[in-house]
Formats: sequence, structure tokens, C-alpha cells
Amino acid sequence: MARWRSKLHEIIYEADTPMGKAFDLVLLILIILSVVFVMMESVSKIDAQYHELLYIGEWVITIFFTLEYISRIITVKKPFRYIFSFYGIIDLLSTIPLYLSFILAGSNYLLTVRALRLLRVFRILKVTRYIGASNKLRRAILHSRPKIFVFLFAVVITSIIAGTIMYLVEGEENGFNSIPHSVYWCIVTLTTVGYGDISPATPLGQFIASIIMIMGYGIIAVPTGIVTAEYTRAIDQIDTNTQCCPNCGESKHKDNAKFCHTCGDILNPESDS
Amino acid sequence: MARWRSKLHEIIYEADTPMGKAFDLVLLILIILSVVFVMMESVSKIDAQYHELLYIGEWVITIFFTLEYISRIITVKKPFRYIFSFYGIIDLLSTIPLYLSFILAGSNYLLTVRALRLLRVFRILKVTRYIGASNKLRRAILHSRPKIFVFLFAVVITSIIAGTIMYLVEGEENGFNSIPHSVYWCIVTLTTVGYGDISPATPLGQFIASIIMIMGYGIIAVPTGIVTAEYTRAIDQIDTNTQCCPNCGESKHKDNAKFCHTCGDILNPESDS
Amino acid sequence: MARWRSKLHEIIYEADTPMGKAFDLVLLILIILSVVFVMMESVSKIDAQYHELLYIGEWVITIFFTLEYISRIITVKKPFRYIFSFYGIIDLLSTIPLYLSFILAGSNYLLTVRALRLLRVFRILKVTRYIGASNKLRRAILHSRPKIFVFLFAVVITSIIAGTIMYLVEGEENGFNSIPHSVYWCIVTLTTVGYGDISPATPLGQFIASIIMIMGYGIIAVPTGIVTAEYTRAIDQIDTNTQCCPNCGESKHKDNAKFCHTCGDILNPESDS
Amino acid sequence: MARWRSKLHEIIYEADTPMGKAFDLVLLILIILSVVFVMMESVSKIDAQYHELLYIGEWVITIFFTLEYISRIITVKKPFRYIFSFYGIIDLLSTIPLYLSFILAGSNYLLTVRALRLLRVFRILKVTRYIGASNKLRRAILHSRPKIFVFLFAVVITSIIAGTIMYLVEGEENGFNSIPHSVYWCIVTLTTVGYGDISPATPLGQFIASIIMIMGYGIIAVPTGIVTAEYTRAIDQIDTNTQCCPNCGESKHKDNAKFCHTCGDILNPESDS
Repeated sequence: MARWRSKLHEIIYEADTPMGKAFDLVLLILIILSVVFVMMESVSKIDAQYHELLYIGEWVITIFFTLEYISRIITVKKPFRYIFSFYGIIDLLSTIPLYLSFILAGSNYLLTVRALRLLRVFRILKVTRYIGASNKLRRAILHSRPKIFVFLFAVVITSIIAGTIMYLVEGEENGFNSIPHSVYWCIVTLTTVGYGDISPATPLGQFIASIIMIMGYGIIAVPTGIVTAEYTRAIDQIDTNTQCCPNCGESKHKDNAKFCHTCGDILNPESDS
Repeated sequence: MARWRSKLHEIIYEADTPMGKAFDLVLLILIILSVVFVMMESVSKIDAQYHELLYIGEWVITIFFTLEYISRIITVKKPFRYIFSFYGIIDLLSTIPLYLSFILAGSNYLLTVRALRLLRVFRILKVTRYIGASNKLRRAILHSRPKIFVFLFAVVITSIIAGTIMYLVEGEENGFNSIPHSVYWCIVTLTTVGYGDISPATPLGQFIASIIMIMGYGIIAVPTGIVTAEYTRAIDQIDTNTQCCPNCGESKHKDNAKFCHTCGDILNPESDS
Repeated sequence: MARWRSKLHEIIYEADTPMGKAFDLVLLILIILSVVFVMMESVSKIDAQYHELLYIGEWVITIFFTLEYISRIITVKKPFRYIFSFYGIIDLLSTIPLYLSFILAGSNYLLTVRALRLLRVFRILKVTRYIGASNKLRRAILHSRPKIFVFLFAVVITSIIAGTIMYLVEGEENGFNSIPHSVYWCIVTLTTVGYGDISPATPLGQFIASIIMIMGYGIIAVPTGIVTAEYTRAIDQIDTNTQCCPNCGESKHKDNAKFCHTCGDILNPESDS
Repeated sequence: MARWRSKLHEIIYEADTPMGKAFDLVLLILIILSVVFVMMESVSKIDAQYHELLYIGEWVITIFFTLEYISRIITVKKPFRYIFSFYGIIDLLSTIPLYLSFILAGSNYLLTVRALRLLRVFRILKVTRYIGASNKLRRAILHSRPKIFVFLFAVVITSIIAGTIMYLVEGEENGFNSIPHSVYWCIVTLTTVGYGDISPATPLGQFIASIIMIMGYGIIAVPTGIVTAEYTRAIDQIDTNTQCCPNCGESKHKDNAKFCHTCGDILNPESDS
């Protein structure tokens, strides 16, 4: 019995063997297909014509995903660790919605959460180059997070106060019919989205809006500055290490350096970092 | 009498003791509650149903804030210094609006200025990591300010001239009904907000607008560049340390410096940071 | 016969000789003229008056371009290499549309693809300074591509899921009439374009939209950070030179290196660059 | 006679003497006043009431500016150099429009060009700190210009081709009524302005628009990256020089360094750069 389990494990979890590759490819296609199916079902014209087909398609794929999810739990050594892992939760969420639609109408549309499974593509494509890229990026973004959080917090506070002022200045007759609505307008403006569903109509309101926009212009620079600086640092940290030459004391050698570039002395063999 | 004052001082101003922590938490919740109350009051539907409740809630919190404000003045050693400090002014502004609403209708909405008190959250959360982040950020932003000011000044001058040209080209029939209005449109465009409440309708106007937009595209790069460069520098300044030369007293040496760059004297071997 | 061919080759392919320069200039003017002609033909008012003129103009230029394309094939040594090169394909695409318009009405508008031929301008202007700039840029952009691809992939997945949520929250009565349409709205919002043709109308929808916008505000920082960091590195790489170690052949030494960092051998004193 | 000329020269051109300072201040106020006057004249409501007043105000200031312009020419040693200098041309343009309005109605609005004279503010405020900032900025922007030019050129070509495609896909019934109009829409989209006066209505058009927007998202990163990298370089070039230590060969010393920070040897006295 252990044999077919280890065989199944190899097919599902490995991406190097021909079987594993084929499985991942089938999975990839099914994910895209199912997301397309759900999208098309929501378009009333297409749904009117192909409802039956789309419905059957969704069920076939969902049953396949359900079987796959069960197999993943059976074949893995520590099932609970998989179940509560990031991908485990996504895999579960990708199968539930259609079953839920019996109870809660419309919940089948949540099948688009399957799009998250596309993140597996990176694993299939085996592009370590890409993974490397996203790892460096991820580190930079993780590092920037607390700073960007502080920053977004300030943006929200600014929006609340500026939104209140605009509510008092413009009033309900110009679409600013409540403070939450004005705060919404203020966020739309500060982020430079600018739908135009609400826009200031009084000269004073337009003047204040201009100031908010110019402020937003300066503010948009901050998160960009944070990410860029962190990412630049993340890149630089890889290319030079802080190894110190025992002869002349020069540091900041290239990672693969064996001899000091300043005095030519031999460098200490690098210890693992 | 001095005892209860010092006790009160500890509760209000300290965030380390259990009582101080509890007080700060209560304050935090009350701030959020009161901002939510004011926002909800401005929504006519909600106000129609819960006016009484919201009104009482606002008054209860305002009275609490008033008492807190008075306590802060009484228990602090230098009351005037507190009153005219940044937080002192915010604390005052957070209590006044509701009293003012007897005289000036609508001023109660200004209670949302209380949102500024949320900045205290950082103190409560005791996240030195965050504070550290915002300190570095603040330094970078402060450093960038004069440059960004010069830049925004140039944007405003550009908007005035481009706005005049658009007023002459498009004219009142296309919504550009005065120069200030055209300048407003120009700021909306340069900042890439683009409400669409006014937009050029003549071919010549659209051509000029295109040039303004492409210019804005290049211009948006400048404040971002400034903040990024300053922030990168703020981070890099960790690379120059504050080590002091034992001979000449020069500080700000490079991290890998073994000899003072001013007098050539040997520097103390760096202690681990 | 070989003589007129080499003469023709010189005129068409060279940009240094007076004849070659004149040819390139004529080409440049014709490209701009033909793009302007096509654009003007699409404006119904202008087309009504000058249709004949524009039509003849397009044909004259197209015949000239056809002759030029044939000449390029005849005079070049490896005709197939030219035909399948980037510029060869553009040159072909620049002549076909008008002939195609006999079969497929409207295809003549595709003549605007000729605008791509304007890239030759750089060759004509002989601005090595510009080419240098775009080379460095191109390298930075090429380097950023996999990372930006990963990033845009994440944006699309986010849009699909957020679009589904908005479809369920807002529904057809507020313009979110299908998931693909909602995804389109989500991309319009995340990229801060914000047409306003669809915009959330329910309070919950506006709240979710606000979160999407603030997220977009943080997200827009990432590609900028990537390009900036890569470009900064591309500029800094001037700091590592291509000097080759006479002993072990290792290149890419730091500019101030006197000894090879791989074998410790002394490097040749740098010649002035 | 030479005496009053040198006296006048001192008042007009100097900003250090009390008289010069007062003159500059008056000038500054008059510039702002006249721009405000012209703006107010364009607002029909205000103009209806205060036309006389504004008209007289404009004339008084214009006559003052005319006299000032003449004085500047008389008192300066090389009048032609002043006349054809940047500020000389602005000064002339700031006086002409009102005289021109006798011949050409509406040209008086061009008086807003006077806003450019506000650039003198920097001179009056004597903020060398600001000037320093804008000098560094100017250098970075000048350096970035050819690269940004190449980039904007590419954006325009992209817009022409994408605009043509959208014209063919959407057609006149959806507002894309000519290629120039579609190109205008494409620029509005790529720059993330997004007025919404024209927006794609067909599914295919929205799909293509989504691609254009996501591309624009990546493209907006490029000029920002260029300016940031150049500005970072401009800042860094000031803090370290390329001086080489005669003993150990270490370069990149701080500007005020007298001794090598690596080996402690004395550095060559810096030659003027």
C-alpha cells in the first residue's frame, strides 16, 4: 500500500519526474480553464447560451480538485502541516465554493480564488531565476512593510481630516453627502485614481482639492522611495561582503574574491553566512 | 495632594505601568469610537435612526476628553509647555468643536480632528522598530522638503501659465470658464488625478493637454527621485559611524576606517554595535 | 552591375556620406508625412475635403517605400537576414497595409505602424550619446523584466480576486455587470487610471475600493523600485571595469583594484579611458 | 548723471542693500497682485462687479513694469545681453500683453506669464540653501533629459500604434472617432490621468485597454528610475572624490580627508576640480 502512496506523492509533489511534470501541466491548464469558466458564467450573454456546458465543466474540475486535495493529504507525511500551510489553505478554498453554492447562491463565483493557485506556475516553470528575483523582492517588500504601514496610516488620518473639511465646504448638494463618502473621495484623490464620480464644484472646494492633489503628488513619492532604497540595499548586500583583508584592512570585497584588491594579500577563506 | 497628582501623572503620561497601559488603551478606543460616531452622524440615514444615541455618545466622550485635558495640565510640571506643544494643541482642538457647535452649527463635525490623536498609537504600541522607521523617514522627508518645495513651486507656476493657455484655447463653452478653473484643471491633469469633470474638447486643446500630460509624466519622477535619493542616503549614513578620533576629535568616519582621515592618527578598534 | 548595387547600398544603408544623409532625411520626412496623412484621413471632416489628396499622397509614399524595401533586399549581401531582422519586418509591415486595403477595408489605417520606423531617427541623428543612454536603459529594463513580470503576474491575480469580490458586492445594477468587467475596473483602479465609467456606489463597495486604491498606492512603488535599483546598478557598473588579469584572466575588477581578487597577481596599470 | 544711474542700478539689481530689498519686495507683491487681477478678471461674476477696478489695477502695474523694464535697460552696462537673457525676455513678455490687447482681444490674459517672474523670489529670499538644492536637481534633470527624451519618444510611438488599434477595435460609436483622438485617449491612459471622457465599451477594447494600462504601470517606472539614479549620483559625487592614496591605492576618500582611512598615509593636497 505504501508503494502507490509514494508513487502518488511523487506525481503530485515532484516537478522533476516526467509524471510529475505532466501532472503539474494538467493542473495549470485546469486552473486557468476553471477561472475562465467562472468568468464566462458571470457574463449574462455567454451564460444564457452555454450555461449547461460551463456548469458541467466547473463540476468536473471541482471534483478533480477535490480528489487532488484528498490525495495531497493522504500522501504527505505530516498532513496537518500541509492543511494549515499557505498552499494547503488555498487548495481548500479552491474546492469549497461550488459545494457552498447549494446553500449560498452566488458563492460559486468565489471559485476565482483558484487564480491564487497559479502561483504554483513558478514551481512548474522551474525558473529559479524568477524565484530568485521574487525572493529578493519579497525581502525588500517585507523590510519596507513597517515603514509603509506607518506611511499609509498617516494617509488615512489625513484623508479623514481633509474629508471632513471638504464635507463642510462642499456639502450634500455637490455629492459630498456624508463624511465617510468625503473620506472615500479624498482617498480617490490622494491616490491619483480620480474617478470623477464626485468632484468639487465650489471654487473654495476646488482650491482645497488642488492643495490635496499637490500634497498627494509629494506623498506618492514616499512609498516608492522606501521600496527603492530597500531594494537597492537588498541587491547591494549580495554583491559585496564585509570580509576584512588581514593585511590592509580593506573590506567590501566581491563575493568571489580570494585576494584583496587593494594590497594583493590572501583573504581568509569565507565562513558560511 | 502631591501624591494623587504624581499618581495621576503616572497613569496619564506613562505607558509602561499596567495602569498607564490600560489608560492608553481606553483612550485609543474612545478616539476611534468618537471618530466613528461623528462620521456616522453625517450619514443622514444612520443619523435619522440613531441621532440621540450618537449625540449622547459624543458628549460622554467629549466630557471625558475635557477632564483628561484638564488633568494633563494639572499634573504636568510645566503646564504651558504642554499647552503649546504639538500634542497639547491637538488635545485642545479635540475637545473644543462640540462646545463650539452651540454657537456655530456644523462645527461638531470637526471632531474628526481627533483622528490626529491616533498618532499616539505609536506610543502605546511601543514599537521602537516603527518609530525608528518613521524617524529615518522623517529625516529623509525633512531633508527633501526644501527641494520638493522648489519643485512644487515650479509646478504651480507651470499650471498658471498652461491654465491660461487652455482658457484661451478651449473657452467657456467647453467648461474652461475662468483662469482659476483652468488652473485647477491643469493641477488635476499634472498630478494625473484626472477627474474628467472638465476635459478638453477641441483638437488643439487635446493636443496641448497631451503635451501637459507627457510633461506631467516626466515631472512626477522628480519628487520621487528626491525622496528616494535622500532616503537611500539616510540609510547609507549607517555606513559612516560616529566613532571619534582620539587625537583630533573628528567623527563621521567610514565604517571600515582604521585611521582618522583628518589627522592620520590610528582609530580605536571598533566595538561591536 | 555590381557598381550601381554598391552605390545604392551606400545610399540606403550608410548615414555618413552626403547622399546617405540626404536619403535618410527624405525617408524621415516621408515617414512623418505618411503617418500624418493616415491620421488625417481618419478625421471625417478633413477626409471629406481632402480625401483625393490624402489618398494619392499615401499611394505615392507607399510606392516609394515598396521600391526602397526591394532595393534594400537587392543590395544587401544576406537578404534573408535583413528580411527577418527587426527593422526588416517593420519595413515590410510599413508597406503591406495599403495593398491589403483592397481586400480588407480599414486595414490602410494600420499604416501608422510606420511610426516604428521613426526609431531610425536615432541612427540619422547619429547621437551616440542618446544611443548610449538607451543602451544602458535597455540593459536595466532587460534586467528588470523577469522581476516586473513576476510583479505584474501578481497584480493580475489580485485583480481577478478583487474583481470577483466587487462583482458580488456591487452587482449589475451599479455597472459591475460581469466578472471580466469587474476585473477591468480593478485594473483601471490599481493602475490609478480611474476613468470613472464604472465606480462603486454602495458604501461597502466604496470601502473595499478604498482598500484596493491604498494597496495600489503601495504596489505602484514596486516596479519603480525595481527599475531604479537596476538602473542605479547599471550606472555603477562603470565602477567595475573590464580589465583582464594577466595571470588568471579574471575580468570585472573594481576600478581601484591593483591586484586581481582571484589569483592575487598584480594588474596592469590602468590606461586612461 | 552717472550717479543716479548707478544709484538706480543698485536699487533694481542689488538685493542686499535696504533699498534693493524694499524694491524687490514691492516687485514681488506687484507680480502676485497682477496675476491675481488677471485671474479674477477671467471670472465672469467678479469681472461684472469690479471690471473698472481690475482694469485700472492692471494698467497701473503694467506701467510700473514698463518703467522698470526701461530702467533695467538704461542702468545696465550691456543692455543687449540683458534684453536677450532669460529674465530679460520674461520681463519683456510680462509687459507686452496689455498693450497688445488693443489690437488682439483676449491677449491681456497672457499677463499670467508674469508668474514666471516669481522665480525671482528665490533671489529675494536669498536662500542659497534652496538654490543649492535646485542646482543639484537641475544638474540631475539636465543629465536625465536625453534619456527621458528617448523614453518619451518611445511612449509617443507606442501611443500612435495602440491608438490606431483602439480606433479600429472600438470605432466611432464608442467615442474613438478618429486616430488622433484615439492617440489622445492612449496618452491619457498611459500617463494614468484617465479623464473618462472617452473609455472603451467593447470587451475586446477593454481587454486591450487593460494591457495598455498594465504596460503604462511598468512604463511609469522608467523616468522615475532615471531621475532617481541620476540624482543619487549627483548627491554622491559631492561627498566622495576619486583621490588616490599614494601608499595603498585606496580611492573614494571623503572630500575633506587629509589622510587615507585605510593605511593612514598622508594624501596629496587636493588640486582644484
